[in-house]
Amino acid sequence: MNFKLVLRITGFTLLIEAGAMLIPMGVALLHGESPIPFLSAILLVLAAACVPVFFLKPKTDFFAREGFFTVGLIWVLFGVFGALPFWFSGQFGPYIDCFFETISGFTTTGATILTSIEGLPMGLLFWRSFTHWLGGMGVLILTAALLPFLGISSNFLIRAESPGPVKSKLVPRASQSSKILYTIYLGLTVLEALCLRIAGMNWYDSITHAMSTAGTGGFSDRNTSVGAFGSPAVEIIITVFMLLFSVNFTVYFLILTGKAKQALKSDELRFFLTMVAISIAAIAWNLRDIYASVGECVRYAAFQVASIVSTTGFSSANYELWPEFSKVLLVVLTFIGACAGSTGGGIKCSRILILIRSAHREVSSIVHPRAVSVVRLDGAPLSERTLHTTQCYFIINLFLVFGMAVVVGLDNFSFTTTLTAVITCISNVGPGLDMVGPMGNFAAFSVLSKLVLSFAMILGRLEMYPILVLFSSSAWKRS
Amino acid sequence: MNFKLVLRITGFTLLIEAGAMLIPMGVALLHGESPIPFLSAILLVLAAACVPVFFLKPKTDFFAREGFFTVGLIWVLFGVFGALPFWFSGQFGPYIDCFFETISGFTTTGATILTSIEGLPMGLLFWRSFTHWLGGMGVLILTAALLPFLGISSNFLIRAESPGPVKSKLVPRASQSSKILYTIYLGLTVLEALCLRIAGMNWYDSITHAMSTAGTGGFSDRNTSVGAFGSPAVEIIITVFMLLFSVNFTVYFLILTGKAKQALKSDELRFFLTMVAISIAAIAWNLRDIYASVGECVRYAAFQVASIVSTTGFSSANYELWPEFSKVLLVVLTFIGACAGSTGGGIKCSRILILIRSAHREVSSIVHPRAVSVVRLDGAPLSERTLHTTQCYFIINLFLVFGMAVVVGLDNFSFTTTLTAVITCISNVGPGLDMVGPMGNFAAFSVLSKLVLSFAMILGRLEMYPILVLFSSSAWKRS
Repeated sequence: MNFKLVLRITGFTLLIEAGAMLIPMGVALLHGESPIPFLSAILLVLAAACVPVFFLKPKTDFFAREGFFTVGLIWVLFGVFGALPFWFSGQFGPYIDCFFETISGFTTTGATILTSIEGLPMGLLFWRSFTHWLGGMGVLILTAALLPFLGISSNFLIRAESPGPVKSKLVPRASQSSKILYTIYLGLTVLEALCLRIAGMNWYDSITHAMSTAGTGGFSDRNTSVGAFGSPAVEIIITVFMLLFSVNFTVYFLILTGKAKQALKSDELRFFLTMVAISIAAIAWNLRDIYASVGECVRYAAFQVASIVSTTGFSSANYELWPEFSKVLLVVLTFIGACAGSTGGGIKCSRILILIRSAHREVSSIVHPRAVSVVRLDGAPLSERTLHTTQCYFIINLFLVFGMAVVVGLDNFSFTTTLTAVITCISNVGPGLDMVGPMGNFAAFSVLSKLVLSFAMILGRLEMYPILVLFSSSAWKRS
Repeated sequence: MNFKLVLRITGFTLLIEAGAMLIPMGVALLHGESPIPFLSAILLVLAAACVPVFFLKPKTDFFAREGFFTVGLIWVLFGVFGALPFWFSGQFGPYIDCFFETISGFTTTGATILTSIEGLPMGLLFWRSFTHWLGGMGVLILTAALLPFLGISSNFLIRAESPGPVKSKLVPRASQSSKILYTIYLGLTVLEALCLRIAGMNWYDSITHAMSTAGTGGFSDRNTSVGAFGSPAVEIIITVFMLLFSVNFTVYFLILTGKAKQALKSDELRFFLTMVAISIAAIAWNLRDIYASVGECVRYAAFQVASIVSTTGFSSANYELWPEFSKVLLVVLTFIGACAGSTGGGIKCSRILILIRSAHREVSSIVHPRAVSVVRLDGAPLSERTLHTTQCYFIINLFLVFGMAVVVGLDNFSFTTTLTAVITCISNVGPGLDMVGPMGNFAAFSVLSKLVLSFAMILGRLEMYPILVLFSSSAWKRS
């Protein structure tokens, strides 16, 4: 293991984090708040980062193992250091809570330990939403775009951070791809902020909510989330953008390059849109006795389905009070999540689609054992290896959910709280049911549970394998 | 599809069911109760069964498709006709409840719709436990043992009813195997009944509880299940026998033929025993503030772990009142279940072990993509095909749980009730949490939910594939 290089890249990335903190510090100054929490944090991060960046002279050998280790380390350290402004402010509780909140931010989960949000300093709440935006596209893709300056191939890093089931490189060079993706990401964020401003939100709220939507995170600066604004227009805008950010960004790239027809043929996109439409219809029907008009039922259902399936986690109503059918369906959608190649989390629609098709083939093969058939996605046959990896992904995800639920169960909160807390964290959604419902929070959990749930969020955000590899003995053997 | 032969075999099996009803009718007469519910049921079954048995002269072509269809049809009809004595008695509520109770019996689930059990006619309660005992070894294995008399090869039937991950034919001929299995099954049941009698239970209770244990069913004739007897000796005896019936019967066959060493080397057995030991220790520790002594904690923990992992579903205490950690762990054990080749349900330990090993290989292969490694069980390499089938089994199981939970959610019971009801039914355990907890019952569910849960029980008992095949269009195409 080339530890020196790992540390140097990590240090380099932390410099970016220190730089990023300048923006919320500016927001704090603009609103007449103290810049001290940010300034102290920035100085500490700089001190920690400068040593490996300027004094280590590593070889440039960089392989898969180094990639995984770097990614794991960076995500943990981003939480460790990103929590400092919250901690220094003294308004976010003990350090473990600040760490949980920051990991929840960078992993775009949106689970919060805050019992009351309104009234907190605007700089800190801006940083909270900004972590979503930074985490949304993967801090590593950003790093990777800059890595060639260090003379290192970035492929192993990209592979470690985005192990989606079906890769489609937009353009041959990773640094170029990431620039295109970032342009789309930034463009959509700006567009959403503008729409929200026009709908009547102030600039601050527009920008923080646009960032939280873009990263499919879900931190809001209001206690009752988006519902607090009481504006159907705002809800509809956010619904549309949550869905836009759940779609594979390749679709936008194809549309921009005049291949809209090809983009719309995507099996995953069709599956996603069908699932969303059916879920909205089913929940709207289930809410018929709760809201006054069909329009309201559809609006609330659409917002919540888009919020959960995009793994954002905003709420426009307290769905904890909805009938059980809607709640169970929302939990199932929490598992499924968004499209691959989006900023959303969950198991991902493409994986679910692959699993459904391979399960169907398996059942058929019982009657026709000698028939040879392949599982296809977008018309192209998938290798048995891809099927195997996808199946293992689902199985490991479930095993981890069960295992972590047992540990979180030690806190003795209700079965529903325990189970949905783990599911919502590993899927990077944010709210669950009961105590961790849309109006609830994660404050009451023990330190152990907060660590386990933070781990779940990182596992989910990095699609598990890069982190699990670090726990496999074979990763540490010489090949 | 050779429908005539399917109907003839089905009719033949129903004759066995009619014959089986003679025994509870005898019990009813012995206790001075009316034999009418049984007599009417027997006459109806005979009328329905005699037509295909005596008048159809089918060809003897019998392939996989016919096998699956026969198995599915027989299990549904066993429920349909087996429910008649309950229904005719007028004491078990509407027909759907009687059907649910009977399916719960034959599938060895033990989920009940009865709100009060004590005071019901003893003949009917005997029939209830007897369905567990009949269902335990698979009514089809019994039929298969007799099939050669009809001039039909029984292999396709056996395959359809017992699609366990790793088959080990005890002796070459199916009919001989099933005789050996039945001898072990009967022997252990008699042994347990004797032990319970010696421990102070009356003969009736001893026999019904022994039958419910043997089938890993869980119907008791007391409202508070085994706890009602207030006898540690009874609890310990039942704990031991629940575990004995969770073990692959091949182990006993090997022990009987002097190959005990080989039997104890089984990976699945070791995994099962380790899991049971750890779970008992963890739950006993979790109960330390609830019971007075360490001995009591261990006794209650051991009983409940054995009950859930064997998928029996008896209870010696209201574990609904235990801390959440214990409850979450019990739900995880509900999923896992017993060993393959036992009378227990769940996903089965051998499958879980195979999944853990293939997940581990998958993670290792990320670092060493070119290394070729196989997954082994009991030292022998498993084919990729077996891994694939096992993975699909787990995935389909979870998909069905999610799908059925959404439908059952329409009844608007709590999230915990909804989810654990589905899990406990598909795993053939019986009780879940909240409304369907150890002191609860399934009476309040709608007709739709009762049908869905009955379907879940049959799916679980037949290990899914035989039933799913019937829903696959390819099963109905000519090959």
